[in-house]
Amino acid sequence: MAAAVPARTGQSVLELGCGVGVASLCLGARVAGLRLAGLERQPGYAALARANAARNAVALEVWEGCVTAPPEPLRAQAFDHVMANPPWFDPAAPPARDPGRDAAQREDTPLAAWIDTGLRRLRPGGWLTMILPAARLPDALAALAGRASAAVCPIAAREGRAAGRVLVQARKGGRSPFVLGAALVMHAGSRHLRDGVDFTDIATAILHDAAPLSIS
Amino acid sequence: MAAAVPARTGQSVLELGCGVGVASLCLGARVAGLRLAGLERQPGYAALARANAARNAVALEVWEGCVTAPPEPLRAQAFDHVMANPPWFDPAAPPARDPGRDAAQREDTPLAAWIDTGLRRLRPGGWLTMILPAARLPDALAALAGRASAAVCPIAAREGRAAGRVLVQARKGGRSPFVLGAALVMHAGSRHLRDGVDFTDIATAILHDAAPLSIS
Repeated sequence: MAAAVPARTGQSVLELGCGVGVASLCLGARVAGLRLAGLERQPGYAALARANAARNAVALEVWEGCVTAPPEPLRAQAFDHVMANPPWFDPAAPPARDPGRDAAQREDTPLAAWIDTGLRRLRPGGWLTMILPAARLPDALAALAGRASAAVCPIAAREGRAAGRVLVQARKGGRSPFVLGAALVMHAGSRHLRDGVDFTDIATAILHDAAPLSIS
Repeated sequence: MAAAVPARTGQSVLELGCGVGVASLCLGARVAGLRLAGLERQPGYAALARANAARNAVALEVWEGCVTAPPEPLRAQAFDHVMANPPWFDPAAPPARDPGRDAAQREDTPLAAWIDTGLRRLRPGGWLTMILPAARLPDALAALAGRASAAVCPIAAREGRAAGRVLVQARKGGRSPFVLGAALVMHAGSRHLRDGVDFTDIATAILHDAAPLSIS
């Protein structure tokens, strides 16, 4: 997701549900001179995000609050980019052992609310980048309809496989036709043959060398 | 499209906007013993479809009428499968030279109406298979929402390219999660090098040898 955010030096980026800051820190490592902000409802995770940012010398401002009701000062701001990896575990599933992970992974805030908050916090023409289970693509497109143009990058574990995840990139107020891009394939070979690293060249470039990923 | 319809011997298939019968005849050539019906609003095309079916010894019953108001006897029937390649040229575009082609290609009946008629003519659990420009996927998914499950096969001209078309397959009343399948790549090589046939093996199998195409 961080590889797909088309942020340039000097621009502002808000991550909704930033957790301990992983995506924002990846983006900050790839693009210098961004104004990075994160919103996280779990105070313990927000504190870890601040500590991680400090240790990595990345300027990340972390706000505590819920996606459905962001803090007032954050609601007064407009960003060039918003990104989110919303939780999508079944709300009715049994709880995870770790209450923090459980709260971070369970979809108790609907996907449409994440998209609504994301679009509201963007300047006109700003970009919303999300990673979602492929099965949620129809819901995401429905929430974007009439408010943003959209492009999708399917992510497949291996060549010829159905997409497990999708990167969805939307432009606030955009009118461009919907784009279904080529899949990003993560692993080389048609099946898992041995333990160890078998990433494709493009996955290695993104995960290891902080390469950007162009959607559409 | 015809390769993707999962019809079995003895089942019934309705093609909406069958034109001169190409898709229905392809499907009839691949699967023996189907009950094939087509709906076409242009009488000249309907007559050609009947003549083409007779010449190919395929039993295809062709109804004359509009997708938004099918003939009464057709509205009394339920099919195992419906397929359609709806027209999608811009309604405001200048007319084509051939009035028949113009009427066949211009989207004067909205995509949602094709999908609505398709779903109405299916038995519960029946399959709707359509080929669409990739840009229309959000509209198609919106029209299917709450009425059918959906799976998509992107069709790309070449490896690594965005999808130009999508095959959308929906199951009436289905509850399965949305599936974004691997792309069907039509041409081998990364770019067009010379005139002549450069289809991929899978495209050749479908187009030349009547192989089926599984979506999802």
